[in-house]
This record gives sequence, C-alpha cells and structure tokens, in this order.
Amino acid sequence: MALIVQKYGGTSVGSPERIKNVAGRVAKFHAQGHQVVVVVSAMSGETNRLLALAKELSSAPDPRELDVVVSTGEQVTIGLLALALREMGVSAKSYTGGQVKILTDDAYTKARILNIDDAAIRSDLSEGKVVIVAGFQGVDADGNITTLGRGGSDTTGVALAAALKADECQIYTDVDGVYTTDPRIVPEARKLDTITFEEMLEMSSLGSKVLQIRSVEFAGKYKVKLRVLSSFEEESQGTLITVEENRNMEQPVISGIAFSRDEAKITIQGVPDRPGIACQILGPIADANIDVDIIIQNSGHDGMTDFSFTVTRGDLDKAVKVLDRVKSAIDAAVIETDKTLCKVSIIGVGMRSHPGVAAKMFRTLAEEGININMISTSEIKISVVIEEKYLELAVRVLHKAFCLGDSGGEDEE
Amino acid sequence: MALIVQKYGGTSVGSPERIKNVAGRVAKFHAQGHQVVVVVSAMSGETNRLLALAKELSSAPDPRELDVVVSTGEQVTIGLLALALREMGVSAKSYTGGQVKILTDDAYTKARILNIDDAAIRSDLSEGKVVIVAGFQGVDADGNITTLGRGGSDTTGVALAAALKADECQIYTDVDGVYTTDPRIVPEARKLDTITFEEMLEMSSLGSKVLQIRSVEFAGKYKVKLRVLSSFEEESQGTLITVEENRNMEQPVISGIAFSRDEAKITIQGVPDRPGIACQILGPIADANIDVDIIIQNSGHDGMTDFSFTVTRGDLDKAVKVLDRVKSAIDAAVIETDKTLCKVSIIGVGMRSHPGVAAKMFRTLAEEGININMISTSEIKISVVIEEKYLELAVRVLHKAFCLGDSGGEDEE
Repeated sequence: MALIVQKYGGTSVGSPERIKNVAGRVAKFHAQGHQVVVVVSAMSGETNRLLALAKELSSAPDPRELDVVVSTGEQVTIGLLALALREMGVSAKSYTGGQVKILTDDAYTKARILNIDDAAIRSDLSEGKVVIVAGFQGVDADGNITTLGRGGSDTTGVALAAALKADECQIYTDVDGVYTTDPRIVPEARKLDTITFEEMLEMSSLGSKVLQIRSVEFAGKYKVKLRVLSSFEEESQGTLITVEENRNMEQPVISGIAFSRDEAKITIQGVPDRPGIACQILGPIADANIDVDIIIQNSGHDGMTDFSFTVTRGDLDKAVKVLDRVKSAIDAAVIETDKTLCKVSIIGVGMRSHPGVAAKMFRTLAEEGININMISTSEIKISVVIEEKYLELAVRVLHKAFCLGDSGGEDEE
Repeated sequence: MALIVQKYGGTSVGSPERIKNVAGRVAKFHAQGHQVVVVVSAMSGETNRLLALAKELSSAPDPRELDVVVSTGEQVTIGLLALALREMGVSAKSYTGGQVKILTDDAYTKARILNIDDAAIRSDLSEGKVVIVAGFQGVDADGNITTLGRGGSDTTGVALAAALKADECQIYTDVDGVYTTDPRIVPEARKLDTITFEEMLEMSSLGSKVLQIRSVEFAGKYKVKLRVLSSFEEESQGTLITVEENRNMEQPVISGIAFSRDEAKITIQGVPDRPGIACQILGPIADANIDVDIIIQNSGHDGMTDFSFTVTRGDLDKAVKVLDRVKSAIDAAVIETDKTLCKVSIIGVGMRSHPGVAAKMFRTLAEEGININMISTSEIKISVVIEEKYLELAVRVLHKAFCLGDSGGEDEE
C-alpha cells in the first residue's frame, strides 16, 4: 500500500465525461489499497474564460481580486470530482487551497508555497477517504486567496507529495511521458523510461512543456519521485523523473533534444568595450521585466565590441524600445534585430563524462550546411541558435547522430 | 454619512456591462460620503450552470460538495465587481463568506447563519474602502463551505446589516418595489411606499417573490430597515419595509393582493371521524418532505368526515403515492385530486381593527359568480382557493373593491 499524489490537468478534467474517467482511474488505485490524494486544475478553457471576464472589467486587473476570480475554476473541479467519486461509492472529500491550508506568500498571481498543513488530509486518508485538493491556489497569512501562476497545479501536486512524504507524485497530462524529442518532428522519437531532474529542468525550460519548471525544481529539492503519465492511456508507465544515482550506469550520453521557435536576437553594434557595459544594457531590460536567454559578448577590437542577446519574440519590440532610450548613454551605433531564429539544444547528464559531445553536434550540423549563429553551453546542455528554417532538419539529424531512436539509446541497457 | 448595505441580485450583475453599472451606482453612494457594503449574487444563469454540471456527475449530489461547486458563482462576482470599482478609482476589497467570516451551521445547501465577524469589514470601512461580500455562502465551524439556499443572498445582506447595525439595507432587484398586486394582471396596481414586515411576509410566502422570506423574517427580528429598489431605475425610492408603528395611522385596511397558481387540492373522502386522524394522514406527508398549505376538516356525520389539504402541484403525485400507502390504515374510501385551482389572498395589518373585511371579500367574489372552494384566514390575511380560470378576474375586482388603485389607498394619507 502506497501513498500516491495524482495531478490531473485541465484537459484531463475538461468535461463531465472526462471527470468521470478520472474518477474511475482514482477509484481503481483506491480499490488496490493505495491512499490517494488528487490535485486538479480548472476544466480546460475555464481559466481563460475567467481571465477574459476580468479583462472586460479592468485593463490592468488588481492581482488580489484577479486571484479571487480565477481560483474558482479549480474549486468547481474539486467539487465535481468528489461528486463523481461518491457516485461510484468512493468516499471522497474536497479541499480548496485555503481549506488545506496551503500557506503562500502574498505575491498574488505568482505566489510561492511556504507551508502545507497536512493534518486534515492525513486524518481523512487514515479513514480511507480519497482527498481532492484544488491545484494552483493557496492563502496568504491574512487569509487572502492567492494563485501560483499558470501551471501551478503541478507545483501543488509536488508540494503536497513532499509534505505528505508520498511514495510517488503522478502528473497526468495529454502526453504519455517525456520523449527524446517532439515526435511530430522526428517520428522515431522514443519515450524515455527515466530522466534526471536536471535533464528535465533543461527540457522544460527549453520548450518541452510537459511539466511546469517550478514543480520539477521543487521535486528535485525535496526528492519527490515524480512520474509523467497520460490520463488517456491506461497501460503506459510514463516517464519517471529521478535523481541521477538511480540511473543505469550505461546511460546514453544524450537523453533528449529540445527546441524553441520563440527566439529573437538583438545585436548592439559598436559598443565601447569598457567595464559595466553589459550591466548598462541589460539592467534596463531586466527592469522592464523582459527575460533574457542567451548573452554573447566577444572581446572586441579598436575599443569597440558587438553585444548580442536573445529574448522571446513577444518581448522584442518592448526590448528595442528600452534600448532606444539607453542607446545614447552607451554610445551604441546600431541596433539590429532578427526574428527568424530558433534554438536547438541537446541535453544529457552523460555529457559530463563524455568529451567531444559539442564537437559531434557542431560537425553534424555543418554536414547539413546549417550555420550556427550563437552557442551557449551548460554542464548538461549545449544550445545553438540557428535559422528557423533549419529547425526540423537539425533536430532530425541530431536525433540520429546521438542514437536516440527506437534502436538506440536506453534500449541498450 | 450613513452605513448602507446594498444587495444586488443575479440579473443586476448578469454581464460585465451590468457589473459596471452596479459599480457606478456604488461609487456614487461612496462619493456622497456613505460607508457602503455590497452583497452580490452569482451572475444570472451561473448557479444553474453549476448545478447542471453537478447533476451530470451525480443524480443525488452530496450536499457538501455541491456547496463547494455552487459557491464559486458568487466568488466570481465579488472579484469582478471589485475590479470594476478599482477601475473607477474606488478602493474596494472582496470577501468570500469564509473570509468575512460568516459562520453557519453545517446544514449544507440550506445553512443558517449563526454569527458574523464584523472586525475586518469595519476596519476596511474606516479606511474608506468599499467592502464587497459574496452572498448566499458561509462556512461552518470546521471551515467547510456552506450555502444558505436559493435566494440566500438577501439573507446575507440583511444579516450583515444587522451585524454592522447599518442604517439601511437596500435590496436591488429587477422590480422597483412592492406593488399592491401584479401589474401584469391589474394595470392600476400601485407601488407601495411602505409595507410592514408582517404584510411582506404574507406577500412573499404567497408568491410575490420580491424578497426571500427568510431575509424578511431576519430583518423584522433584528429591526433592520429594509428597502426594495430597482437596480435599473436610478430615481425610484422603492418600497421601505418597516415595523408597524412607523406607519401612518390612516393606513388602508388592505395593503395588497397576492396570488399563487401553483395549487393542488387533495380530498380524502370517508375518513373515520376519530382523534389522531389528521396526524395519521399528514405525518407521512411531512416525512416525505411535502409542504402542506391549507388544511380543512369539517365535522362529519355518521362518524365519517372529509379531509382536504393543498400542496404545490409539483408535489401532488408524490403526495398521492404516500396516501395510497396509508389509505387502508386510515380506512379511507376515496382520494380525490384537483389541479385546476389557484389561491388569492388579501393582506393588510389594517384588517385587525376593521371588522367586515372577510365579508366584503366574499361578497365581491360572489357578485362575479366566483365559487369559493376553500377559505383560510390569519390575523392579517384572508386566502380563498378558487378555480384557476377566475384568478385574473378575482384579483381585479378585489383590487378595485378595496380601493388599491392609483386613486385610492395610501394616496389618501
């Protein structure tokens, strides 16, 4: 008998029929003797409907009141799921974030969990009840309703699993696990049985949106056994996200390939090559709440240098406006932008012990005539920025070069 | 400067546009220097939508979980109204029933308010904030969400007004006050400037559904000055519901005429005329949760009597089934039913000091050839059950006979 936390996303609970399916799955686990805590999101479309209502009444909605409105989506789902389980004869009880209580800071719309009171849940579980908790929400110390930001239900699930010392936290989504890369681009892409937290973090942050990145960090920090599963396929074991030591020693060098189309590059030419210049450029960008990804500054000549960085395409115009304001202060000559780029990354904890991975990546791309625009590396990841038109080709040839297909990789274990 | 509690129903907040109108009205009162507490219902249609979802998942929904689902309707409205007010530059803060907190018993779906903690609201009001409270909901002592039953937002408004000792509780609806009778039937029907709590109770319970009856009882008990107003007409002063002493001595004998089409009569013929027979008949009816209205038992002859009572038409079949079961136990011969009846009542505290009101009513009906099927009286009300086809005629002639039109009644004051 295990204590399992299961999290079901908006698509999995998107209609009464689907809620019944989730109830059936939960009931099966419960009947096997497991203690089950279920975390649910709002029914798909509901959060957007509520946000649209709020936007109709306020162009810049007050975040406290926005959370009051938006948090109702999950509250509806917990009640409905409890009704569905009770209809099947399973004793179930729902909790809002405030009722648990899930204590957060007061950063409305992006609150962080500070503490979870597990007393009521433990008591219910010991009575054989299925406990259903609203994802995405909590209360601050003054009892105000807070939300954790988009995708926060994953974080709720992991945080509950950590607080309850659950045997496993299962995240049910509309995919059946983590793949070596997007199967829509590489049909040979293979589902991974396991992936490390670090690899998963790199995959998440690079656009493989299976799990909210914060929940992966949380799970890694509190050593929560995290599994990604499909809520529509009963048989699959999904992908287990695990600490490195648990992995087979003969693991492949590269675990997966991530990519992102949402890249825009800004180059500031003719910047004086003097100390503090990076800060003068990026300080105002950060103040404008724009996330910067890759940053490149080459040592220059004649006391001048070029300074490049990437932002998401949606932030490009805002970033250029900011730079136009600081341009004269930094004596910059020209600001160039490029929206036709993408980013491709290979990820794997194995590259720590295998030299030559970067060289192999660059050679593979060169053989296809793909020019590399920018390079960025971390301990377990190598990213290149290339022209977007080469994205599919690059992912395919890299997938093959690093033997990630059905006949390679972990199948050798 | 006064402390005013305003309650807006579902129609008044049925769309973002209407919520903006409510915000405008609240802002006006606030700008006049009044302290304003606003109670809102769910947007019209929302509660039914949530109930339908619940019904899809459970044929007999668990009441605790049903309240979790249904209470979200009001929570959305409080957030939206707060956003609308803030957009107008008015400092506003929303509270769910649990946040106030409005403590109730644990009778889910029909909970009763036990206590209201007014500390947070008073503090906000003293800071110049408009306070917005979700109607219809509270929490029990264990923190479970409860609802007060349909129309419970009126009760929330009155209870808050009592707890805060507000100068007035204003109930905004889609009508502009209480009328002598339904203007759709009698075009000369006149809006009453004042009506007593007792009269209002009789009007409410007889189908003039302006206010939830419980809120009127509550207001009477705690001496809350209650006013019914239209949320769509700015100018009208509505109808003030008041204690009798405040009324002009020269008040009319009759204040209004109420009616109900939803009447069904059950007659049990040939019942042995012995002690305890009423209890034997009506006990099982009450056990089946069927409300009985008028009850008539004549003294019989030959040791036998006829026993009649009325129920709502929706309960008729259920009631007959119950009686079929007890029929042999009470030695009843025949059970007869009639669904073609209606009830018409004249109401007025003035009839206490004016004899002859009943005689005038019966004579008026007789002059039109309307046969009276049943009669029931209370201190301030006389009800007759007649054939439904005579309903409009009866209401019209009684309205005229008791001078309730524009040229009569209170205008004489």
